[in-house]
Amino acid sequence: MRLLLTSAIGFVLALTAFTFKPTRVIFFGDSITQAGVNSGGYIDRLKKVLPADQFELMGAGIGGNKIYDLFLRMDDDVLAKQPDVVVIWVGVNDVWHKATSGTGTDPDKFVKFYEAVIKKLQAANVRVVLCTPAAIGEKTDMTNQQDGDLNQYSQFIRDLSKKYNLPLVDLRKAFQEYDLKNNPENKDRGILTTDRVHLNDVGNQFVADQMQKVLTTAK
Amino acid sequence: MRLLLTSAIGFVLALTAFTFKPTRVIFFGDSITQAGVNSGGYIDRLKKVLPADQFELMGAGIGGNKIYDLFLRMDDDVLAKQPDVVVIWVGVNDVWHKATSGTGTDPDKFVKFYEAVIKKLQAANVRVVLCTPAAIGEKTDMTNQQDGDLNQYSQFIRDLSKKYNLPLVDLRKAFQEYDLKNNPENKDRGILTTDRVHLNDVGNQFVADQMQKVLTTAK
Amino acid sequence: MRLLLTSAIGFVLALTAFTFKPTRVIFFGDSITQAGVNSGGYIDRLKKVLPADQFELMGAGIGGNKIYDLFLRMDDDVLAKQPDVVVIWVGVNDVWHKATSGTGTDPDKFVKFYEAVIKKLQAANVRVVLCTPAAIGEKTDMTNQQDGDLNQYSQFIRDLSKKYNLPLVDLRKAFQEYDLKNNPENKDRGILTTDRVHLNDVGNQFVADQMQKVLTTAK
Amino acid sequence: MRLLLTSAIGFVLALTAFTFKPTRVIFFGDSITQAGVNSGGYIDRLKKVLPADQFELMGAGIGGNKIYDLFLRMDDDVLAKQPDVVVIWVGVNDVWHKATSGTGTDPDKFVKFYEAVIKKLQAANVRVVLCTPAAIGEKTDMTNQQDGDLNQYSQFIRDLSKKYNLPLVDLRKAFQEYDLKNNPENKDRGILTTDRVHLNDVGNQFVADQMQKVLTTAK
Repeated sequence: MRLLLTSAIGFVLALTAFTFKPTRVIFFGDSITQAGVNSGGYIDRLKKVLPADQFELMGAGIGGNKIYDLFLRMDDDVLAKQPDVVVIWVGVNDVWHKATSGTGTDPDKFVKFYEAVIKKLQAANVRVVLCTPAAIGEKTDMTNQQDGDLNQYSQFIRDLSKKYNLPLVDLRKAFQEYDLKNNPENKDRGILTTDRVHLNDVGNQFVADQMQKVLTTAK
Repeated sequence: MRLLLTSAIGFVLALTAFTFKPTRVIFFGDSITQAGVNSGGYIDRLKKVLPADQFELMGAGIGGNKIYDLFLRMDDDVLAKQPDVVVIWVGVNDVWHKATSGTGTDPDKFVKFYEAVIKKLQAANVRVVLCTPAAIGEKTDMTNQQDGDLNQYSQFIRDLSKKYNLPLVDLRKAFQEYDLKNNPENKDRGILTTDRVHLNDVGNQFVADQMQKVLTTAK
Repeated sequence: MRLLLTSAIGFVLALTAFTFKPTRVIFFGDSITQAGVNSGGYIDRLKKVLPADQFELMGAGIGGNKIYDLFLRMDDDVLAKQPDVVVIWVGVNDVWHKATSGTGTDPDKFVKFYEAVIKKLQAANVRVVLCTPAAIGEKTDMTNQQDGDLNQYSQFIRDLSKKYNLPLVDLRKAFQEYDLKNNPENKDRGILTTDRVHLNDVGNQFVADQMQKVLTTAK
Repeated sequence: MRLLLTSAIGFVLALTAFTFKPTRVIFFGDSITQAGVNSGGYIDRLKKVLPADQFELMGAGIGGNKIYDLFLRMDDDVLAKQPDVVVIWVGVNDVWHKATSGTGTDPDKFVKFYEAVIKKLQAANVRVVLCTPAAIGEKTDMTNQQDGDLNQYSQFIRDLSKKYNLPLVDLRKAFQEYDLKNNPENKDRGILTTDRVHLNDVGNQFVADQMQKVLTTAK
């Protein structure tokens, strides 16, 4: 038997003594999450700190994925595995692909597909955690090419978090605050990322810490 | 009672003496179809030649729509109206938006969403007719900017027509053949379109003729 | 005889009693400057406040222009008119066209062509004033799609201003500060622009004021 | 003393007995030309068939270059080396970068900068040879994404060849004809290119052959 408590602020995963199965958490995302299951990746790091009898963590990340890729493959890759919790972390490619292949996601369509994913997960009694896209470039003076657009799409996700009363891991905000403190030379990579987007060791640990707070904090 | 005969080549809508309701056909598409219901538009022209006791024609076109817009709104705008036949005409924006807003549709995603639309219509016992996107520019020497990509996406639709054994109105092919004969000056507009994409009077009649053949021809 | 005094902060156009001809200033730019000569435009407003015996103001703006358009037409449209001062205001299209037609300007090429324009003007003994691109969207929370890129290109121009010790009208900074005070609803247009980019009446007056300071302030 | 004969069809490099120095030919282009000087590259292959006492061949290719990159660096990289002949081969990136970074070249600006390069070379008494961009994808049914645009830009170059009466190596046409004969499976690479754009061994030999004809054929 599971007892679930949620609030507008936090996210409760309280497991009683009667629980026999750990909470199955699927991290659903793009290449960042695909790499997250590798040794030293953020999911790998979470596995080492979250008790295995309480949490079963699975990665479902595929490189290049946008929100509508998640929508298209959620039956096979997520719902078929009957997760208790799904952490959605997407958005970088929805913005980035506008410049790199002309196939980014329209703002209104981003929200529509994101809502469709949320609703379908909720209809399957899955608890949903949202994340904002962290970075395409780590410069702190708001001169990374996609900063404006990434801020816009992050705001969409924050709005969805409020609208559906869902826990949010605001990685965009967390990365910006971290970089402001730790990137005095205004470099575009190398603080939390290897290449402006994908996580280095510090970045993987940083994301694991952010995720852990939301997955375990009880209110 | 309706009798339906289909073949790899044609599409049969044979209505017996026992039919009490006309066949409801919804044209599902973008701005070209949105304009198609206006006076002189291709749907308006079809209404004048197809017997009203046999065919009820409805437009469901919205400007700027790509295949995934159709997917997102098909419940409300199409299935809720219980059509017998749906004519899907989309693709121009999937290609064009790559250049005009960076939000075109990836080739593989175009096919995936197109298939999802087909399957959902078929699951509702709707007969499906496919169309290829006609033109972004009418120059006949294959120098319109999007010619290659539009040919590619048209080929995807032809392949889907074969895979699902669905009737096809190959407007891309029909426009190219018409322009080769009627556009000796290699102009980019003014033959079948007003602005390289949207239909002029000749274009609306031409499309109506192409549609009529598929909707009425019995094999 | 003219006496010219410049400083890192201001820009001096001191005309002595011996000067017989007014200082010819050409505003060299895109559609914003093209509209600037219209009644109520920023150049038209400057004409009303700057003494005609001291300043002759001319517009040389063409819609859609990027830095390399300025380079290509500077002989005919600027140098042929033998200006004393050229105010370069460009950059919006270099960024914006990435999304609207796939033909924006690479960052490094933006700087190279900008420098080529500066050098060619200086070689003709023209005093050069630089401006940063004001806005593509007036939202104040840094969520306008091109904010990051526009900040980046503005920074390039600030760097060029320092490198060549040229007076700068930092419209990007001025617009952001103005909007922070006067756009509490975080609207994307309507404060200084009609359409996120082009100036409304308040915007034209605001730009005229900014330009006037640099053109007339003596140190 | 050199005797130069040109015609609309061919290009004559007739060297008299009085010539003491070989004709210096610079191949001016992008990554394809950058690789052309490597062992097995098209310039390397030309060196082996063209007599060293008659032809001195030099590569001036830089990856990612568009026509305006050539313009910006032609003083340093070409004119400073005092070539007798310059073979301009550019255009792939002007088209391709529209999709891959949003920084392709506007059609009219492509022509303007191309003409500026031609005029500047001619002003330095350099004989100019033009080439059309060969391919972005080798599919033969005109379904490569950039086929339409690449055809358009190739046509611009053919028009410039006529306007300035300059010899043309029509690689676009030659590649399409070769692929029609040798690519029955409609593959997008592997016939003349390794990756849809850059030359494989067969491609390097094929280009060398095309170039050789124009460089040596006397009419």
